[in-house]
Amino acid sequence: MDPAVSIRDCRAEDCTEVLRLIRELAEYEKVPEQVKISDQGLFQDGFGQDPFYKCLVAEVPPERRSKGGHTIVGYALYFFTYSTWKGRNIYMEDLYVMPEFRGKGIGKRLMRTVAEIGLEKGCTQMKFSVLDWNQPAIDFYLGEGAVDLTAAEGWHVFRFEADAMQQLASK
Amino acid sequence: MDPAVSIRDCRAEDCTEVLRLIRELAEYEKVPEQVKISDQGLFQDGFGQDPFYKCLVAEVPPERRSKGGHTIVGYALYFFTYSTWKGRNIYMEDLYVMPEFRGKGIGKRLMRTVAEIGLEKGCTQMKFSVLDWNQPAIDFYLGEGAVDLTAAEGWHVFRFEADAMQQLASK
Repeated sequence: MDPAVSIRDCRAEDCTEVLRLIRELAEYEKVPEQVKISDQGLFQDGFGQDPFYKCLVAEVPPERRSKGGHTIVGYALYFFTYSTWKGRNIYMEDLYVMPEFRGKGIGKRLMRTVAEIGLEKGCTQMKFSVLDWNQPAIDFYLGEGAVDLTAAEGWHVFRFEADAMQQLASK
Repeated sequence: MDPAVSIRDCRAEDCTEVLRLIRELAEYEKVPEQVKISDQGLFQDGFGQDPFYKCLVAEVPPERRSKGGHTIVGYALYFFTYSTWKGRNIYMEDLYVMPEFRGKGIGKRLMRTVAEIGLEKGCTQMKFSVLDWNQPAIDFYLGEGAVDLTAAEGWHVFRFEADAMQQLASK
């Protein structure tokens, strides 16, 4: 653990930096064109009256900033969900650390903080999704005690896109 | 469509009935022992200061109640989530209609209402999960325009249970 790295709540003024990291993660996931949100959207959805998400950032001191000059080097975006079997859940939508800051335990500290926040809120489960080709991530999570529910129980995630939602709603 | 069936928001006093349906659904999913929540928990988590879910119920008039004497014959439980690619999402955790009331379009009306609520809130995606052996449900959702993200893109759902969360948090 590196005490110079701080894990703290994302602030409204960090949205541009978080969006930069969101884009880096989407590039890693091989779908950079999928990121349709703007920093303005991220700001409105996270810092309005009725926030849709919460976010932690990992920050390094200025003297240890990235090659590109950034001090926010990782993030974990999460929200609360619900299981009709187990009750309160916390869902970790994204966990990302810039490549040049990996191997320092920053990802684990972000994830641990999400788990702590979940436990404080009375959550009994913490969920997230991983792409099946992302073996390093899968190994990391399994090593930390996670269960692959798709493999173990056969759960598949489905989605209606906006046009399918419109069609449903107009029936 | 059966106009005698009304789709309306779940009220606090409906929690016991919704829990009955949650248990019926878990039986159908072959895991009745998984339901650990109580009607008191469902009430607190949905009708407290900071609700973790929202719920719609399908209600029939008293003269058309079920063989067991019930007028609440289906439900859809949902909440809002977030995609760092597309922004606001609505997640349909459960959709269930009692067997004796199927084939009347009640499930479609519940799902349509969830889609409408999502669109009103500015959601561009509606997600949900289905067990891979539940072919009737899969066919139904695909027929309505849904995409199986696990099959199409390789997304697997992972979970930390409470003890794994505790272990994470204590590191």
